[in-house]
Formats: sequence, structure tokens, C-alpha cells
Amino acid sequence: MKKSLGKKPLAAPAPVWAVGAYDLEGKPNAMIAAWGGIVSSKPASIAVSVQKARHTYAGILKHRAFTVSVADVAHAAQADYLGIDSGKDIDKFAATGLTPVRSELVDAPYIDEFPLIVECTLTNVLEVGVHVQFIGEIADVKVDEDKMSGSAPLPEAIQPLIFTPGARTYHGLGQLVGKAFSMGLEYRKK
Amino acid sequence: MKKSLGKKPLAAPAPVWAVGAYDLEGKPNAMIAAWGGIVSSKPASIAVSVQKARHTYAGILKHRAFTVSVADVAHAAQADYLGIDSGKDIDKFAATGLTPVRSELVDAPYIDEFPLIVECTLTNVLEVGVHVQFIGEIADVKVDEDKMSGSAPLPEAIQPLIFTPGARTYHGLGQLVGKAFSMGLEYRKK
Repeated sequence: MKKSLGKKPLAAPAPVWAVGAYDLEGKPNAMIAAWGGIVSSKPASIAVSVQKARHTYAGILKHRAFTVSVADVAHAAQADYLGIDSGKDIDKFAATGLTPVRSELVDAPYIDEFPLIVECTLTNVLEVGVHVQFIGEIADVKVDEDKMSGSAPLPEAIQPLIFTPGARTYHGLGQLVGKAFSMGLEYRKK
Repeated sequence: MKKSLGKKPLAAPAPVWAVGAYDLEGKPNAMIAAWGGIVSSKPASIAVSVQKARHTYAGILKHRAFTVSVADVAHAAQADYLGIDSGKDIDKFAATGLTPVRSELVDAPYIDEFPLIVECTLTNVLEVGVHVQFIGEIADVKVDEDKMSGSAPLPEAIQPLIFTPGARTYHGLGQLVGKAFSMGLEYRKK
């Protein structure tokens, strides 16, 4: 039996993505977005939603660029802090000890300590209620080279944080369940 | 040391969401979207990206509605199958044994066996390269009542599937790492 919870932004999993941008004065800043996802395979594009009151908002619009640094379990507390205080008031890199790195491809900083980085140029801005969705075309993905398997990031090594709206908790990645485009074949009629 | 992987749609975690829609003939269909995420808190809105060639595409446009049924670990193989074959050729509900339920709120079906359902009316259609992003305003969220804690879905009971692009694997949810808006407070200056 299902229970109605109403018009709420509840779905799982949600990401824990640090959105990096230079502010209007050129200082590096990062905030956490849990509202976001990949939007297109080609050109590879990713979306994050930001409220207009956030310090990051004007910076992305000015520099037409942002990065997504995927938070991992090892840096959960630092990532959470990036979603608590504002870069208006404080240098969150100094507060957490995280290191901003200037992207060579887009006008935005990323977080050196996070294992998986997506560098983006801004292509679409869409206001949806209280949030503004920024879509960026992916200029490059960078991964810690010891956290790869073949040509792809290894999920068990990346250990991305997973956020659940409603419960407002972070979890790590659990056990391997199976391979996509493979385990479903048992339902295909012979 | 970080390694460049190029312009690829790699970020984690990605969801495993069954997008439900009636087709042009009114038959229920569902496909899997891993490209999607919450877009706005108010009005609560969610996005999924669909390619124009998919059977689901025209159905969402005709009925101006879709649902997101969050796939769980227990139904990983069925969910995977929904991303393999097309509703053009086959009744995927019959093939998997999953049960389509007509939403009372929006003109779309959801999957009874999946634990967390989001019912949406279509509000925005945005073409981004090879994908079209559908944004829907959330009319209701429904959760199996034995998988809640207080007024929110309990992540450990929901057991949402987690997809990792690149590796193309499904994982379950891992251990609790901490509470959001709480574990980061240690970095706030007293």
C-alpha cells in the first residue's frame, strides 16, 4: 500500500555535487547541489540547480562556466559544510582546507581533493520556480588516475556520496548489483 | 594526479528511474532514464532526458504527463530490461510481470512494484543535443507505507538502485555516512 506525501521534491538517489565558480571579484567559491543530473549524452551536458540568492549564482552567469566536483565519502563533512555557509561571508576553501584548482578549459575552479571533476561551459539557463537550472556542456572529465578501471571511473574507488531528500542523509555506495544492459536480458523473449 | 577522460557524460551517482507514459494509442509504457534529477524545490519539479527515437517521447508530449518510478535493488533486472527493449515492439509490463497503475492525478502510468513514485505534469521541454529534457511539476509522491520513517521515505528501506555511467554498473545503497546540514558544522568557525 502506497502513501501520498504530496508535492515534494523526493526522489532517490540524489548527487552531492560541489558546484565551483569564481565570484564577481574572481574569488573561487563552491556550493553543494543535490538538485542536478546529466542532461545529454552528446554534446555531453550536465545540469545543476542554484537559487538566485546563492553566492554562486552571479558568478556562474558572469563567467559563463562552472565545474562539478563529485563529493566522496572521505570528504563528506567538508562537502556538507560547502552547503551550509555562504561564500559571501567566508572563504569556504580556507575553512575546510580544500584546494581550489583553476580549470585550464573553463573559467571556473574545481576541488583538487574530490575524485571526479566535470568542467563545463554554460549553455542554458532556465528558471524553474525558486531554482535556476544551469546546463553546461562538458569540456572535460578528470578522474584520479588511481580510481579508474580501463577508461572509466571505478565506482568502488570513487565512492561517490549519495544524498536522500526527505531523510536528508548521506550514504556511501553499496554492493554491486549487476551490469546495465545485461541483467535485464533474462526478460527478453527468445 | 588526475587523468583527462574528455567530453563524456560521466558523473556519479546517476539514478535508475522508470519513466512511465501512455503511448499514442493509450498503452502504458516505461523506459529507464539515468539522465535526470530534481530541478526545483518549489514548485517541486523533476527532469528526465529522453531521446526522440524512444517510444516514450511522443507519449509524454501527447499526454503532457509522466511518472518516475524509482527502481530498487529487488527489481534491478526488470528495471534493466525496461532500458533494453522498446515499447514499440513489445509490452514491457507483460514481459517483466510489472504492474502498470493509472495515476489518479496525471495522465500517465506508474509501476506498482517500485517503492517510490513521482507523478508529474509536463511543464518544460528543452532540446539539448541528442536528448530532450522533460521537466515535470510534481503532483504527488507516493511511497510504500512500510518504507517510511516519520514523514519521509527511509533510504535503507527504499534501497534505490544507483547507476554509474562509464562503468555501466548498478549498485545498492551503502552505509550511512552522516546527516546533511549537520556533519559539516565542525568546519564553521566558532
